[in-house]
Amino acid sequence: MDYEAYFQGELDAVRGEGRYRIFTEIERKCGNFPHATRYVDDRTEQVTVWCSNDYLGMGQHPAVLEAMHNTLDECGAGAGGTRNISGTNHHHVLLEQELADLHGKEAALLFTSGYVSNWAGLGTLAAKIPGCVVFSDALNHASMIEGIRHSRATCRVWRHNDVAHLDELLSEYGPDVPKLVAFESVYSMDGDIGPIAEILDVCEKHGAMSYIDEVHAVGLYGPRGGGVAEREGLMDRITVIEGTLGKAFGVMGGYIAASEALCDFIRTFASGFIFTTALPPALAAGAAASIRHLKASEMERARHKERVATVRRRLDAIGIPHLPNPSHIIPVMVGDPHKCKRISDWLMDNHGIYVQPINYPTVPRGTERLRITPSPVHSDGDVDKLIHALSDIWSQCELARRSAAA
Amino acid sequence: MDYEAYFQGELDAVRGEGRYRIFTEIERKCGNFPHATRYVDDRTEQVTVWCSNDYLGMGQHPAVLEAMHNTLDECGAGAGGTRNISGTNHHHVLLEQELADLHGKEAALLFTSGYVSNWAGLGTLAAKIPGCVVFSDALNHASMIEGIRHSRATCRVWRHNDVAHLDELLSEYGPDVPKLVAFESVYSMDGDIGPIAEILDVCEKHGAMSYIDEVHAVGLYGPRGGGVAEREGLMDRITVIEGTLGKAFGVMGGYIAASEALCDFIRTFASGFIFTTALPPALAAGAAASIRHLKASEMERARHKERVATVRRRLDAIGIPHLPNPSHIIPVMVGDPHKCKRISDWLMDNHGIYVQPINYPTVPRGTERLRITPSPVHSDGDVDKLIHALSDIWSQCELARRSAAA
Repeated sequence: MDYEAYFQGELDAVRGEGRYRIFTEIERKCGNFPHATRYVDDRTEQVTVWCSNDYLGMGQHPAVLEAMHNTLDECGAGAGGTRNISGTNHHHVLLEQELADLHGKEAALLFTSGYVSNWAGLGTLAAKIPGCVVFSDALNHASMIEGIRHSRATCRVWRHNDVAHLDELLSEYGPDVPKLVAFESVYSMDGDIGPIAEILDVCEKHGAMSYIDEVHAVGLYGPRGGGVAEREGLMDRITVIEGTLGKAFGVMGGYIAASEALCDFIRTFASGFIFTTALPPALAAGAAASIRHLKASEMERARHKERVATVRRRLDAIGIPHLPNPSHIIPVMVGDPHKCKRISDWLMDNHGIYVQPINYPTVPRGTERLRITPSPVHSDGDVDKLIHALSDIWSQCELARRSAAA
Repeated sequence: MDYEAYFQGELDAVRGEGRYRIFTEIERKCGNFPHATRYVDDRTEQVTVWCSNDYLGMGQHPAVLEAMHNTLDECGAGAGGTRNISGTNHHHVLLEQELADLHGKEAALLFTSGYVSNWAGLGTLAAKIPGCVVFSDALNHASMIEGIRHSRATCRVWRHNDVAHLDELLSEYGPDVPKLVAFESVYSMDGDIGPIAEILDVCEKHGAMSYIDEVHAVGLYGPRGGGVAEREGLMDRITVIEGTLGKAFGVMGGYIAASEALCDFIRTFASGFIFTTALPPALAAGAAASIRHLKASEMERARHKERVATVRRRLDAIGIPHLPNPSHIIPVMVGDPHKCKRISDWLMDNHGIYVQPINYPTVPRGTERLRITPSPVHSDGDVDKLIHALSDIWSQCELARRSAAA
């Protein structure tokens, strides 16, 4: 078989669908977020990033950077081993305590990424508990789906946010069948929020464990940044809270927070936890500093909410349609991969505005979009430029607007 | 079902087998490796680490730290997004170029860890190429096994390093069947090295792709640290070279190096690559500095070889049995999980020597061992202390010795 020809053929097919991804190469300017230098061909240019998941700009926060610099000097670059073989650094232990406290749980367990925490966390629970049935929201993240798939456990998919459907599926299994209900709080691409309390009611009715992915919520929601479940006073009813250190906390890594026994179980049996080099101590220290800051400071969350509301209001005023949702994510729907990419390219080339086009497999085909994520570090001037540029391209391309009243 | 009781029961079973893992909490002292502070109960004590995978001490190299400090100041803490959505930093691109050059390949692709690079790399090739059959060495790493398992492709396991058996299994499939042969260069736990040239002969005979895991070899072998395949002049015959930035390079992250089309194929289709936050730019810069240094400097590798030879010679002199192998890994076999842990505890408590006991599932039951990894930063005094302590515990426990001549 001609493997190279096969790879090329598959890539050509992706190109033909207009969803071949060209990564935008940037260098974010610490102290000057959301501004960045873009590398293109043999030159550089200045751009404003409107699609980062460093939602609060914590990646440039002095407390985070100071903790990282200090820990680099004290402990060096890498952890030097897996958690079991010389890789457990004091800073990992402190961070796990910080995370357990954030979520009001007995324990927390670190992973190298949010992807791995979902894959290994869900995958290990579902695989190791004999006869476990997983109930997965239809729009769960790829990392959750792959974890469940990897486990080989029976998986029942319930319609997105449809608690009656979840109840119906759970009712098919007797009380002795182990059950695991997996869902998210903020869904990344539509920005909607799951009906957590109702889901938990149904979980409790059927004796199911609940597993919530709060990666797009931790740091952002709740009085201490514990996520939507904290805001709604529900953390103690959830079996496993999964989160990331790579979005609002501005660093990298993932975790679960749960009971001591559950975390110990995952720690002991999860291949993706055991057989991998631990996070660099400096990342752990930086993340802990970020969490500590956001536990105490409401300023970033308040400013974030205000910025999001401002961008929505300005989009409404010029009639650019965006998905209504109760979160900080503003999806401007385009619905065609080629058009979505053209708009994105035009914004970049003519206005230095970077909003990545989102296409399949990240979102379903036909729902291609621009996903705008305002942050506390976007100034009024940044917002003005974004709105004017969008209005301009909407006119040029004769894209549909809706009336400001709609 | 009482989930908590189930978790506790499973953990108790592990405890009963003597393989419950208590992580040793340390703080490596940058500039003073292999020395570290150990946190135990409410106190700290000084220890010497003899089981790190920071094989060359690059985690404290000034060039690595300088690159990381500078990049932290320039670009901030995290990448701020997935590679596709605002997370591709200039430093990722530079690092991928450095890695492609290291292995003489057209391209390289970064992952968040070596575990993920194997899982996603092998898993995507095996799943996406229709009818692909994977031929996996019996002692391949967990991350490779999980990747293959995840793919659902047919997997044939060949006896460890047994090229005739591989040939036999490959012969069962016609020329049109896509084939992927997966193996390692240095096997982490026994420290043996695969017969790479012979494996490649058989791959080429059958038109199979070859995938080598060089995570315990990159930085350490070959004139520029390209691994065993570089040392043996075989890199250009291998389809995919997989490596890590978290061991000899002293930082964190994983990668594959291969043809432009293959890397682009994985980039485009691998869930574990697409849906995860990119490595922090500072890690990428630190890893690139480490690779650049080890491409040019032979000193660390020479000193490493000398230290390994010294420890082996000293062990031989006191008759402590260790697995003979051609690598830098010195497994001192104990063969019982309880005894292995007792020896390890005794070394730590009485001599401040940290050698983690290695037990199931990292090695097969009955082959529990102490895995000693000498490095250029271990002094003669460190070696003396290790040897005296081992001799002492071997006498106290009346463990078998072999004659120095054996």
